[in-house]
Amino acid sequence: MRYEEYTIEGRNAVIEAFRSGKTVDKLYVLDGCQDGPVKTIVREAKKGDTIINFVTKERLDEMSRTGHHQGVIAKAAAYEYAEVEDILEAARKKGEPPFILLLDGIEDPHNLGAIIRTANLAGAHGVIIPKRRAVGLTAVVAKTSAGAINYTPVAKVTNLAGTIDELKKQGIWFVCADMGGELMYKQNLTGPIGLVIGNEGEGVSRLVKEKCDFITSIPMKGDIDSLNASVAAGVLSYEIVRQRMMKNS
Amino acid sequence: MRYEEYTIEGRNAVIEAFRSGKTVDKLYVLDGCQDGPVKTIVREAKKGDTIINFVTKERLDEMSRTGHHQGVIAKAAAYEYAEVEDILEAARKKGEPPFILLLDGIEDPHNLGAIIRTANLAGAHGVIIPKRRAVGLTAVVAKTSAGAINYTPVAKVTNLAGTIDELKKQGIWFVCADMGGELMYKQNLTGPIGLVIGNEGEGVSRLVKEKCDFITSIPMKGDIDSLNASVAAGVLSYEIVRQRMMKNS
Repeated sequence: MRYEEYTIEGRNAVIEAFRSGKTVDKLYVLDGCQDGPVKTIVREAKKGDTIINFVTKERLDEMSRTGHHQGVIAKAAAYEYAEVEDILEAARKKGEPPFILLLDGIEDPHNLGAIIRTANLAGAHGVIIPKRRAVGLTAVVAKTSAGAINYTPVAKVTNLAGTIDELKKQGIWFVCADMGGELMYKQNLTGPIGLVIGNEGEGVSRLVKEKCDFITSIPMKGDIDSLNASVAAGVLSYEIVRQRMMKNS
Repeated sequence: MRYEEYTIEGRNAVIEAFRSGKTVDKLYVLDGCQDGPVKTIVREAKKGDTIINFVTKERLDEMSRTGHHQGVIAKAAAYEYAEVEDILEAARKKGEPPFILLLDGIEDPHNLGAIIRTANLAGAHGVIIPKRRAVGLTAVVAKTSAGAINYTPVAKVTNLAGTIDELKKQGIWFVCADMGGELMYKQNLTGPIGLVIGNEGEGVSRLVKEKCDFITSIPMKGDIDSLNASVAAGVLSYEIVRQRMMKNS
């Protein structure tokens, strides 16, 4: 599951990479090149978080491994996503009740990286992210995770609510962080658990919240509304760690 | 203490802003301008985190309020730092034992912003940062703090170890997060407390660590070394919140 970056060269290959939903981190385009296929590629790149660089032919030639870049080179994440089953298997292997983080639309790669890092250190068995309206495993995420991306499985699912339904059948309880829930210290978080963290601005979506078995709250003693998403994920994950440690000691 | 950005125009004023240690967020320089004073300004800007933009004369004229920009305009933080005494006073007013976050060289503005945000919501009375080798209150910090910078006092001190000595005289205990400490759950964190968070890469410096009364540890169950600094600050701050709540209930 090691993170690597690989190079895609040539117009059709690069268009195909975008169309198949691959995470293209960086795109290098021949400066001044404005024909149809190149315009299509730049348009696709602008839809996502791809960083677009307009460069000289010399630079492209230098970067090219095949010698046939046709004016475009893309750098994509070679990271392989795990399956949800891999996460359950990791819990079984350790003989622990599953502890999974589900991220309902985290958009900031620094937050996703920090959460994977937290998941690793809090002993969570994996992270589940949705395919749409969320950041995937980009180079920035890999870097911000401080290497955790190589150890903690991350699964990408089409429908987070559907995945929650499936996992409920396996005996996992779902808790989401939101205002108006009971204080986390007063809830029993020691069983098989899926902790749902919401989007940076919008929180947990209505559909996903309705699937959750209970809502949990971090005490808020200040003047502003909410913690940073990765800090909230850390505080809640460590409340789970604390309760599990106390139970076992 | 509201955060604002203000404009400094003209060569001497901009050089003076840098020399006095002001946090200059952005610098606009007339493109192609290469004389001595401008080179000095650009060199000063590169020492810090200033974002340098080379722009046209029209752009500078448009931004200028005085009409005498001489080819350079800087945008600096108008944020006023608090005094350490203001933080103690905030605790007294609330009738609570002081709870202060001391940041030993946080460099990433996103981390500083997230920590001020956490300090606000965890009910800490203030944040203390060192003058040197650390990010100050920049525009990015203000934004990442999600408004907390307007409520939670931030003091900037010349010598963090000296400040700890002073605060010890007022009965505050200091705890720093590091490996090899006792688990945070087993320590009594309910008294007047200064929580020291170390630099992103290096952790807490030797001198500051020696001043601390005890070392505390977050349980680490994973494969990598450490949590993100703002996540660690969140997890530790909320352990203090939990213990104080349990004690009072």
